[in-house]
Amino acid sequence: MGLVVQKYGGSSVADAEGIKRVAKRIVEAKKNGHQVVVVVSAMGDTTDELIDLAEQVSPMPAGREFDMLLTAGERISMALLAMAIKKLGHEAQSFTGSQAGVITDSVHNKARIIDVTPGRIRTALDEGNIAIVAGFQGVSQDKKDITTLGRGGSDTTAVALAAALDAEVCEIYTDVDGVFTADPRVVKKAQKIDWISFEDMLELAASGSKVLLHRCVEYARRYNIPIHVRSSFSGLQGTWVSSEPPVRKTQQQGEQKVEQAIISGVAHDTSEAKVTVVGVPDKPGEAAAIFRAIADAELNIDMVVQNVSAASTGLTDISFTLPKTDGRKAIDALEKAKPAIGFDSLRYDDQIGKISLVGAGMKTNPGVTASFFEALSDAGVNIELISTSEIRISVVTRADDVPGAVRAVHTAFGLDSESDEAVVYGGTGR
Amino acid sequence: MGLVVQKYGGSSVADAEGIKRVAKRIVEAKKNGHQVVVVVSAMGDTTDELIDLAEQVSPMPAGREFDMLLTAGERISMALLAMAIKKLGHEAQSFTGSQAGVITDSVHNKARIIDVTPGRIRTALDEGNIAIVAGFQGVSQDKKDITTLGRGGSDTTAVALAAALDAEVCEIYTDVDGVFTADPRVVKKAQKIDWISFEDMLELAASGSKVLLHRCVEYARRYNIPIHVRSSFSGLQGTWVSSEPPVRKTQQQGEQKVEQAIISGVAHDTSEAKVTVVGVPDKPGEAAAIFRAIADAELNIDMVVQNVSAASTGLTDISFTLPKTDGRKAIDALEKAKPAIGFDSLRYDDQIGKISLVGAGMKTNPGVTASFFEALSDAGVNIELISTSEIRISVVTRADDVPGAVRAVHTAFGLDSESDEAVVYGGTGR
Repeated sequence: MGLVVQKYGGSSVADAEGIKRVAKRIVEAKKNGHQVVVVVSAMGDTTDELIDLAEQVSPMPAGREFDMLLTAGERISMALLAMAIKKLGHEAQSFTGSQAGVITDSVHNKARIIDVTPGRIRTALDEGNIAIVAGFQGVSQDKKDITTLGRGGSDTTAVALAAALDAEVCEIYTDVDGVFTADPRVVKKAQKIDWISFEDMLELAASGSKVLLHRCVEYARRYNIPIHVRSSFSGLQGTWVSSEPPVRKTQQQGEQKVEQAIISGVAHDTSEAKVTVVGVPDKPGEAAAIFRAIADAELNIDMVVQNVSAASTGLTDISFTLPKTDGRKAIDALEKAKPAIGFDSLRYDDQIGKISLVGAGMKTNPGVTASFFEALSDAGVNIELISTSEIRISVVTRADDVPGAVRAVHTAFGLDSESDEAVVYGGTGR
Repeated sequence: MGLVVQKYGGSSVADAEGIKRVAKRIVEAKKNGHQVVVVVSAMGDTTDELIDLAEQVSPMPAGREFDMLLTAGERISMALLAMAIKKLGHEAQSFTGSQAGVITDSVHNKARIIDVTPGRIRTALDEGNIAIVAGFQGVSQDKKDITTLGRGGSDTTAVALAAALDAEVCEIYTDVDGVFTADPRVVKKAQKIDWISFEDMLELAASGSKVLLHRCVEYARRYNIPIHVRSSFSGLQGTWVSSEPPVRKTQQQGEQKVEQAIISGVAHDTSEAKVTVVGVPDKPGEAAAIFRAIADAELNIDMVVQNVSAASTGLTDISFTLPKTDGRKAIDALEKAKPAIGFDSLRYDDQIGKISLVGAGMKTNPGVTASFFEALSDAGVNIELISTSEIRISVVTRADDVPGAVRAVHTAFGLDSESDEAVVYGGTGR
């Protein structure tokens, strides 16, 4: 039995009872002969409460101090979890991101992991301890300041530690049973996916699936760390994310690989906004200047579309999507760069939604794109932007059209569950 | 203008308003040309809330994890305070005990400071920042684990930093106006002391005065760091604690040293219990064995009295006092050592109180001891134990007798204020 990294989110450790329940599950893994490293998020609403306090003191808190503040949250949950494990008669030690060797760059509030040097974790494990590590945080390489990793930071901590410690698997415990073929809140007949490739999972995450975030899957793929997403409220198998389907033993046929469907799932996202830069001179370097301005503001964009230039004016429009939360910053950055770039005006639209179909077999199945557009058309959905990759087609529509569009596509690609029973979604134990 | 260390307790930073008020005061010191280092405690009830959470998870939490948990408290207050200062347009950076170079031994929950290496603080100051440091915490020299300093830890952090940074003064901001000749809650006519020597302050602290704790004064004396204890709710001068009285300028007489009274004050303490070891063989090494057992349990004792041995039995009794909170551990330690020591039985009494008279001129004023006992006798107070030092007389009485005894002694030594006005005690701004 090897080393297992388990990650528990804030809803799993929301109160003392949750912490005790999680402690039991951790101890089970230890009893099964595993070395166990646990990555834990802040308890329930702690982070929101800290943000609220910060806003009372200063409406625009500075990055360094904001990180210092937020990291108090995991410090509390990890220490309590270690205590709860000790109470069950097992040895446990908690470690901050810094102590665990999570080295990051210096971009406060959304730092990136540069290196993981888990010497203290290794020692703690070798001495028979369960190691509890604060998720979401690290220490900057140059200034030795405390940093936080931003959204999905705890999942990324878990995968990064799993990679650095050469773990068998990184188990991400959450409040849903796994990754589904679509959001079960929108599509009642969505099915849990038993296995999905890193590539398809990356596309689903990029397309709005909330269960695993893109950066965490990317990290796992780079180091080939299998992820098992599962519920902390049930004992059920969840979704495996890995390079190869896991081998399953069945009575009839001996060993058999889980069959991979052509289409993994339908994702949607209504958290983005569309920015259109109107009247851009159609000459080399203009698009680069626009996206350099966006990049310099540390903003990530998603889809980009450039209209065909009108020959008469020599001007074109460039549209892109990005998180609504970054909308203001993008507009500011572009306004500032307007004299240098020389466009006419900016348009901002936050009433959009994105629907994506993801599956590795897509490009080699010529009917997929056609079926996708037919399904949308039959549902009366108007398409504003289109973007494709090797294993994904995404369209932007009006936000209001999203639920109907997702259901139509899910049905058209035969993803609907045959059972009429309600999908198990979320825990009963909360 | 030199470097000032300011320390703010939990009641001064209990909420966002408190943090903003403290931030203004800090900025004033900075504007006056000082380099400012601020040591801050956890907000209001944060520490109690964390302890409560720990107890829900595990009734006897382990030292290392308990320290990890508690240190989240200062992390929150210091980050918020830095944000509040930045909002006022000044640069501030917060530092954990570890980052500030507070190196301790490995005794969790009551670690001692071994060394202070404030390189990062010095750099932050040189770059024009106000440095905010988490009180109460450090990092252990050998294991690099997070430690807490126990009671009075934040005051000690402040004095230790003041010493390491060669500060002009260490200002301890609290919710009272300074050190008084007696506890104003007990003695209405108690007076604020303008100046007190390190030695007298040490005795007052050891005798139950709560304003400054013994270890902090001891540290200040060793490095000759003047302490100014004052209210964070008023702008009044508080009490200076230093080796020499500060020089004051008066209109009439030019420079004049503050006159030192023979008696500094009357302290009382009802937080101790009395343990009596009954029937100890009266031979060399017995007392040593008893106090070795206590010391091995990491317990500090206060007063010790050995009765005259009864010649007929060759047995004697040894009584000592120690904090009630350590009572259980002391009894356990002695019971465990009973076979080796060979006493008859143990008696435990937690209904005692201690009254102490402190003043440097005491030993050279022969009437002091006599007046002290007369005052107690006139007040009808029965004395159970007596202990004296160069500058202090302490007696143990029934706990119920303490308030009357303190008032009687305060009056007998002419410490009562002539004014009938209520003493300013605590702030009006809370």
